[in-house]
Amino acid sequence: MNLFTHAQIDFAALRRGAYNLRWAEVEEGVIPLTAADSDFPAPEPVRAALARVLHTGYLNYAPAAGLPEFREAAAAHYAARDGIQLSAERIVAVDSAASGMVALARTYLSPGDEMLVWDPVDFLFGHAATSAGATVVRVPFARTGPLDFEAWERAITPRTRMIGVCQPHNPFGRVLTRAELERILELAERHNLWVLSDEIWSDIVHPPHQHTAFLALGERARPRTLLVHGLSKSYGLAGLRIGFVALPDAQAAQRFIEASGALYTSFGATTLSQYAAIAAWRDCGAWLAEWKVHLTAQRDLAVAHLARLPGVELPAPQATFVVFPRVVGTGWEPEALVAHLRREARVATVPGSPRWFGPGAAGHIRLALATSRDVLQEALGRIEQAWPVARK
Amino acid sequence: MNLFTHAQIDFAALRRGAYNLRWAEVEEGVIPLTAADSDFPAPEPVRAALARVLHTGYLNYAPAAGLPEFREAAAAHYAARDGIQLSAERIVAVDSAASGMVALARTYLSPGDEMLVWDPVDFLFGHAATSAGATVVRVPFARTGPLDFEAWERAITPRTRMIGVCQPHNPFGRVLTRAELERILELAERHNLWVLSDEIWSDIVHPPHQHTAFLALGERARPRTLLVHGLSKSYGLAGLRIGFVALPDAQAAQRFIEASGALYTSFGATTLSQYAAIAAWRDCGAWLAEWKVHLTAQRDLAVAHLARLPGVELPAPQATFVVFPRVVGTGWEPEALVAHLRREARVATVPGSPRWFGPGAAGHIRLALATSRDVLQEALGRIEQAWPVARK
Repeated sequence: MNLFTHAQIDFAALRRGAYNLRWAEVEEGVIPLTAADSDFPAPEPVRAALARVLHTGYLNYAPAAGLPEFREAAAAHYAARDGIQLSAERIVAVDSAASGMVALARTYLSPGDEMLVWDPVDFLFGHAATSAGATVVRVPFARTGPLDFEAWERAITPRTRMIGVCQPHNPFGRVLTRAELERILELAERHNLWVLSDEIWSDIVHPPHQHTAFLALGERARPRTLLVHGLSKSYGLAGLRIGFVALPDAQAAQRFIEASGALYTSFGATTLSQYAAIAAWRDCGAWLAEWKVHLTAQRDLAVAHLARLPGVELPAPQATFVVFPRVVGTGWEPEALVAHLRREARVATVPGSPRWFGPGAAGHIRLALATSRDVLQEALGRIEQAWPVARK
Repeated sequence: MNLFTHAQIDFAALRRGAYNLRWAEVEEGVIPLTAADSDFPAPEPVRAALARVLHTGYLNYAPAAGLPEFREAAAAHYAARDGIQLSAERIVAVDSAASGMVALARTYLSPGDEMLVWDPVDFLFGHAATSAGATVVRVPFARTGPLDFEAWERAITPRTRMIGVCQPHNPFGRVLTRAELERILELAERHNLWVLSDEIWSDIVHPPHQHTAFLALGERARPRTLLVHGLSKSYGLAGLRIGFVALPDAQAAQRFIEASGALYTSFGATTLSQYAAIAAWRDCGAWLAEWKVHLTAQRDLAVAHLARLPGVELPAPQATFVVFPRVVGTGWEPEALVAHLRREARVATVPGSPRWFGPGAAGHIRLALATSRDVLQEALGRIEQAWPVARK
């Protein structure tokens, strides 16, 4: 079985329904390597499960915390994958990891509080903090080599309440080691911080690297870890907006249900999306394994092509299906380079905007690789052709 | 075709999947007339449309504002139904009317602002205000007879920024007339208030009453109206969490998209739910007409039985599929009465809790009627049998 061949992609469907800077939003002939969203259809077992739900025909209110079978499946899947203790009573269904991050920040942060946010990192950390009225305090995050824990500690003030951990890291694709996570836990303990651990990319890790969940640090981590996970990346279900958060204990989960608005029906995940997640975890093990093999090959192809271009620095990412080359050596501003590639190569990419990812994103561009080998090969070939001669 | 016979209900499916105090949460033998959610399957055209989407197989990111075809369908449906001007660029998809109310309050209210909230009224108004850090100022709402606009005006202070309008009114089922809405608009204009118009019940109005949309007051209403609508009640799609908000203009819609988090993917409706809504509006006209006929008959049955019980006051509601009898004349506290009915009649109802609906809800109980005639008849018969003799 080969699920990720070029023939599996229905480009007409993507042109109708793939937004967020992708096929439905670019002109004919442009290849969008923009948002981290898949060009492949959702897994067949997920679609079959939803068809069964629709056949029965009921789409009633789910419980505020999520369907019991969703919470069980989430806990069981994550616990088994990472060898950790996680019970269903600590799990709450959320309508995307993004939404879960905002709701957690609003639950655990107050206006005036400070949150340590890596620079660069996925924009949702900063967005979550500001949504809660908290202040974002940027601390440097290294693509490779030692992390500057001392700088992080110096940034802590009496108002610091939370540190964001993006494991694996988006957009660098760095997978932190257990030793590095332990340093973060020590820091959090010393200053009594919450750890917002966004592990949305934890299923997409390239061998030989391995994901270590923050909760895998053991019982010490548990009382301060706020885990967020979602299925958009792992299973190509971005449009279903489904994920979960894991709280330190059942009582904290109840408080989150109240604070998030789930108790009032103003927050929550759809029943169909929860059934989709259950099917993904239960029936898509082989699908996911093949998806990861495909994405590692895509990563290899992208790095091989991009890293040899003049002015580019691109260590191979250890995880995710995005690459984030540093392009300062070209002498081009990322925005200008992105516009140039769009015009000359007919490939859409996104600049590493400091507004979205932090000042440390300056000088980079981002490309998403969740397409077929054929499409990626074509896009990379066009990028090579159009690549500007370094101006410096 | 008769879609709402007893035989259409799949009780085994409800026991597996109907939460929020309903079949999945009550013991065998208890009839839940609790949350306002339907016992009937979702409309077949909606299910068929979702099956087609699943067949194509793509579940990608939708645009932040919602799918273009969703926004078009929402605007066209609502405008045609109410004879108003409404363009797609003013519409934003939200994951339930409840969620839309909170997001609107967070966009338009700041901590310290005050919002006029009727007493009693659906708890989501108070929840929306407090979610935004605003203060809830309760003003009396009459089940029948004149509304006390003078009391509302006296409650206005320099900090008042918004008034909540629940049209039709939940839980009284009162449908405000155009003249009454115009008094509210004048009040809003005089004090420069936003009007949060929750019209989730606007499809379920019993003849000869007719819904008047707040926007039907014309161009004067438009710059201050924040319309919220959803499909949970009209089409039995509570589990899909789908609705929309309409803003005064395209620019306001853009601001809402940013403020709500939709621009950051932390807020929004699933693509499947949006396709379901499109199918509901496009293909379920006959279904909805039959649903309303059924619900009016249910209303008549419930009122006929309940209004004659000792100690009960229950004018016939003009809209919604809930009834909210005043039970003060029984001498029983609503909580005690609800417990009594649960134990003796094996019927689950909810007390008109002041915490949820405002102080004016005290002395009432609420029953939802979105089930078969057989189930309702059985429940009402048991309630009659178990009804306590008035103690006073």
